Amino acid sequence: MSDILILNEAELQAKVQLDLEAIDVVESAFSALAGEGVVMPPVLSMDFKEANGEVDVKTAYIPGFDAFAIKVSPGFFDNPKLGLPSLNGLMVVLSAKTGLVEAVLLDNGYLTNVRTAAAGAVAARHLAPAKVTTAGVIGAGVQARLQLKAAHLVRPFTHALIWSPDAALNEEAAAWVAQATGANVKVATNAEEVVRASQLVVTTTPARSPVLMAEWMHPGLHITCMGSDQHGKNEIDPTALNQADLYVCDRISQCENLGELRSAREAGFLTDITPPELGEVITKIKSGRISDSDITICDLTGTGAQDTAIANFALDRARAAKAGTSFAR
Amino acid sequence: MSDILILNEAELQAKVQLDLEAIDVVESAFSALAGEGVVMPPVLSMDFKEANGEVDVKTAYIPGFDAFAIKVSPGFFDNPKLGLPSLNGLMVVLSAKTGLVEAVLLDNGYLTNVRTAAAGAVAARHLAPAKVTTAGVIGAGVQARLQLKAAHLVRPFTHALIWSPDAALNEEAAAWVAQATGANVKVATNAEEVVRASQLVVTTTPARSPVLMAEWMHPGLHITCMGSDQHGKNEIDPTALNQADLYVCDRISQCENLGELRSAREAGFLTDITPPELGEVITKIKSGRISDSDITICDLTGTGAQDTAIANFALDRARAAKAGTSFAR
Repeated sequence: MSDILILNEAELQAKVQLDLEAIDVVESAFSALAGEGVVMPPVLSMDFKEANGEVDVKTAYIPGFDAFAIKVSPGFFDNPKLGLPSLNGLMVVLSAKTGLVEAVLLDNGYLTNVRTAAAGAVAARHLAPAKVTTAGVIGAGVQARLQLKAAHLVRPFTHALIWSPDAALNEEAAAWVAQATGANVKVATNAEEVVRASQLVVTTTPARSPVLMAEWMHPGLHITCMGSDQHGKNEIDPTALNQADLYVCDRISQCENLGELRSAREAGFLTDITPPELGEVITKIKSGRISDSDITICDLTGTGAQDTAIANFALDRARAAKAGTSFAR
Repeated sequence: MSDILILNEAELQAKVQLDLEAIDVVESAFSALAGEGVVMPPVLSMDFKEANGEVDVKTAYIPGFDAFAIKVSPGFFDNPKLGLPSLNGLMVVLSAKTGLVEAVLLDNGYLTNVRTAAAGAVAARHLAPAKVTTAGVIGAGVQARLQLKAAHLVRPFTHALIWSPDAALNEEAAAWVAQATGANVKVATNAEEVVRASQLVVTTTPARSPVLMAEWMHPGLHITCMGSDQHGKNEIDPTALNQADLYVCDRISQCENLGELRSAREAGFLTDITPPELGEVITKIKSGRISDSDITICDLTGTGAQDTAIANFALDRARAAKAGTSFAR
């Protein structure tokens, strides 16, 4: 029997970056979700109330990928007080033919950051207006920055706006994004300014009540909401989903429980429609944006399919470079 | 930040055996399940129809244990044709305080074998009659053998009976159990003989229709059913659960979906009762066997709590012995 390959974060960072190849791999996972044969169980989720933590386990088998990933994704939000990062985790890669463990990717959440940002780029590629001069983000953490970097690869905007409640973080994020994209990046006065001035907006917050209001929306706007991935989270004014020309989700079964669709339906909107999934838009099973003036919203809760795609990608690259450490089974 | 410890199967086998200490640790997990503060999400389960495979992910946080395990447990039943084992997997051990990955136990299912056999011993300790002279098992695979070894540690029987449809496997199992326990071990003519002659019977089959019939039961019998752990599996005649003086399960929420309780309820039995859980019997919250002549049945689907218990036990022992390989995070 073959050995088990162990890769740590440094080795994975050396092999996998947020680039067009990574975006294409994640896009292929979304396309596969629109087809037959995908096995993607509901997210296993557990709460650690005393420790202010949560752990999600996501997985999916996708036809066309030899292996599938099971991702363990902890978020313990008091960790920074202890000098530790909030987000961590790893991916276990198993053969879809034999179930044997092929590799363990000790990525501390790095691959999740990459595949999440890549998904934002996939949404922008298929739903944002063809011309984006200004992109904006609500949120200023690691994922906010990566979202703008990823979006720039598919919609090379010249200007960007950032806003979060943390002024110091905003400055840091603006400098990072300017460096990563070469765009003119500014800190906005508030979230409203971000939305009104941008053709492409990404929300990346842990909000439990809306940070983006319907009345700020304007023709030709695309919004990708990344933050809501747990029951109770909500970034977008439910009215916005109702007013948009098109609402697209990554997976209906997830978004109606964990995403913006849940909040919208609780408010009485979108109760009688089956929204298109991003994969159905990519594969043209369902329509996406019809005109440049459409307002579109894409709700991404994060799927095990993305994890399987990025894990296969990382493992292929690591093997080709003979990176990592082999363990006898 | 501390390193991540990787342990492979050989290192784990050297540190953890199926003994009274392992049984006590698994018993403590059952006791904890009867108390407050346990977080045990439903099993994440996925089917690989083409490959004749399945993967389960189990986990539980148990108060009193510093870390919790997330176990990935694949079963691919065509593997033996390829010269590979059917069962595999690993356990990821995370801090319950910070969510950081502490260790990855590359056990290929070894710790699952130990904790499953230990659970059988816990059931026997608390539910079998005080005196067991003959123990029997239906099934002759690895787990069947370990069940008799484990049972012997808590009910030191002098005779044992084994039956499965595979005559060669039966002989091999009988020799193994004789060696492990010192008992007089015979291959029975059929399952009925096993049940009629034994005071303690364990079923360890992948059966989807009953292999143990109610009319074979007799006063003073205890049955532990280990096989059913998936929707559709069924080892015990539903009438048997109805006729027994006591039916106990490991976790109601699992047994009513994956265990013998599901089949019994589908047959119209035990529909209006809340059966005791094994942890409630251990902690005397509910009664167990009342007289030596009672017929008792214990339905074990396998819980994440057992995995967390055995993983902590293994990790403590490995750390004490400075075993394994450390990886920079």
